[in-house]
Amino acid sequence: GKHAKKITEGDLSESIGRHRRTDFIAVVSSATVKTALNKVRESKLPDEVSNKVYITETNGKYLGFVRLSRLLRSQEDASVLDLIEGKGIAVPESEHRETAARKLQRLDISTLPITDSQNRLTGILRFDDAMDILDEEVSDDIYMKAGLSAIHAKDHIRSELLTAGPLRYPIGVRLMFLMVTLAGGLLVGGLVDFFEDTLAAVIALAVFVPLVMDMGGNVGTQSTTIFARGLALGHISLDKFWRKHMIRETVVGLAMAAIISVVAGTIAYFWQGAPNDMPLLGVVVGGALFFSVLTAAILGFLLPYIMLKIGVDHAPGADPFITTIKDFTGLAVYFLLAGSLLGIAA
Amino acid sequence: GKHAKKITEGDLSESIGRHRRTDFIAVVSSATVKTALNKVRESKLPDEVSNKVYITETNGKYLGFVRLSRLLRSQEDASVLDLIEGKGIAVPESEHRETAARKLQRLDISTLPITDSQNRLTGILRFDDAMDILDEEVSDDIYMKAGLSAIHAKDHIRSELLTAGPLRYPIGVRLMFLMVTLAGGLLVGGLVDFFEDTLAAVIALAVFVPLVMDMGGNVGTQSTTIFARGLALGHISLDKFWRKHMIRETVVGLAMAAIISVVAGTIAYFWQGAPNDMPLLGVVVGGALFFSVLTAAILGFLLPYIMLKIGVDHAPGADPFITTIKDFTGLAVYFLLAGSLLGIAA
Repeated sequence: GKHAKKITEGDLSESIGRHRRTDFIAVVSSATVKTALNKVRESKLPDEVSNKVYITETNGKYLGFVRLSRLLRSQEDASVLDLIEGKGIAVPESEHRETAARKLQRLDISTLPITDSQNRLTGILRFDDAMDILDEEVSDDIYMKAGLSAIHAKDHIRSELLTAGPLRYPIGVRLMFLMVTLAGGLLVGGLVDFFEDTLAAVIALAVFVPLVMDMGGNVGTQSTTIFARGLALGHISLDKFWRKHMIRETVVGLAMAAIISVVAGTIAYFWQGAPNDMPLLGVVVGGALFFSVLTAAILGFLLPYIMLKIGVDHAPGADPFITTIKDFTGLAVYFLLAGSLLGIAA
Repeated sequence: GKHAKKITEGDLSESIGRHRRTDFIAVVSSATVKTALNKVRESKLPDEVSNKVYITETNGKYLGFVRLSRLLRSQEDASVLDLIEGKGIAVPESEHRETAARKLQRLDISTLPITDSQNRLTGILRFDDAMDILDEEVSDDIYMKAGLSAIHAKDHIRSELLTAGPLRYPIGVRLMFLMVTLAGGLLVGGLVDFFEDTLAAVIALAVFVPLVMDMGGNVGTQSTTIFARGLALGHISLDKFWRKHMIRETVVGLAMAAIISVVAGTIAYFWQGAPNDMPLLGVVVGGALFFSVLTAAILGFLLPYIMLKIGVDHAPGADPFITTIKDFTGLAVYFLLAGSLLGIAA
């Protein structure tokens, strides 16, 4: 159809149309219970797909379904239209497979009809396929986050290759991501190198480098997780991203940043600041953490949002970028604050 | 029963028994197709749970089931035993809910019978409940990894509280985990403090601190992810943990450690080693990364295994421990190597 031509290859691979089963029993809306029961009796389809009869108009337009148990419990001369269930509940072939599978799950139905652009019944999404789809979608995200996404295969094949396949699989796939980590780590190292004089002047600054890095990392992971789950479950809508979700995450980030920076700044003051005659070290550590936590929280929502907007499907792909950005900016602010507040010529 | 008494309260909350539905139609094995069809016609149960008839012995022992569509297609005087499907496929009430849900998924069946210790049919696991169980189990792991597990609620409730609930929820839950991060970061900072003299003598050492930390972190995340997915999908068995999976992960870890340490060591030599007249800096960086990558890979399998063995259900809970252990050991080896190889008095 006209609609199908507009679907790009990328869309197709993720569209529910590819998962439809075409072994289903259908009758037209004028049929009686007797006709429908006979159709089930005479159908050569397997028993497991014969527990429902789908009802369409004569032109194929989908109307609803009737369960075999209901047919059996009804008068033989009754019209199937009087027994109809799930009126008009269907998904178009072009629907994203995760959206369709979530709809089946939300409605607690074992089959979800799939229709074409003219609303004609063309197939069925079955619960078992929906389960596999949801598994794969969640697993894609999990593997992506861990940098294990290079094997383009189903969840269980990927897991099997990683745990029992030839050793070149796990080593190759994992190294690919670790080389990105290497580049990112060296980039952040370059920043430390740039501030070497500041660090040499106040060696105690090195003590809080791990804290600034770890804190930003964990806040960022929390934010991307909340964003990804919220999006999958429909609690985050891209339409309200700026005026609702981004504002909320910023407020949450500000509150966390304030509390963490005061606690950590106080500890830094008493541990390394006061003993080394640098009372402002507490402000430097607190200030860097404030900036780092807030940045990580905002980036944890913003980067996945941008990646979705520009059509990169997998939001968890944002993680490596967040790691490098938050390390870089967090430590930059840390050393810059130190340079200006502690009276060091950088 | 006797068996039920042995189940602890903790087991019960995760056992499939709590998810069983008791609205199902059953006949004894001597029944005919006609008897079974009449039982369905006369049953007051909803249509959606009436598409199968379960077959038991007279003492209640579960034998199998027959589909309504098959009954309809068979001779009325045939025995239901001749039409039986899914012979003996069932799970005990005490089975872990994820194991049961995965079994239903693997078998592609819409209902999985649940039996007591005497093998009597006591209920049914339905596909829709199985979908929710799997969702919750995977989500538990995801939230746990991000330190967002303190809200004990279903996935969608948790996601809603985090994205739309009162601000005290996300702030409180996230801060709890970040305080652990704070403690861990300060602990690693203490280690840096301990090696302050080494660092002061060779300030270039600070350049590779982020790399040692990030590399260990990412390798550890890969390992725990592969372990958790492999366990959930049955590719990792706890029985063969030592002689199969641990050996494999060690070999993979050794290969990755060798490659990464040679690459990073070479870069370190040309970037900071040779220019600063410290050719052995390459060996220090390479050696620390070798140790750090190998440790993170082994810990990524070992800690979740230990937590499962001692009865801590959620393997992802190992992540914060791995972070601190790998940072601590990685940087300790780094500074110790530097102290001995670069001829610095620590």
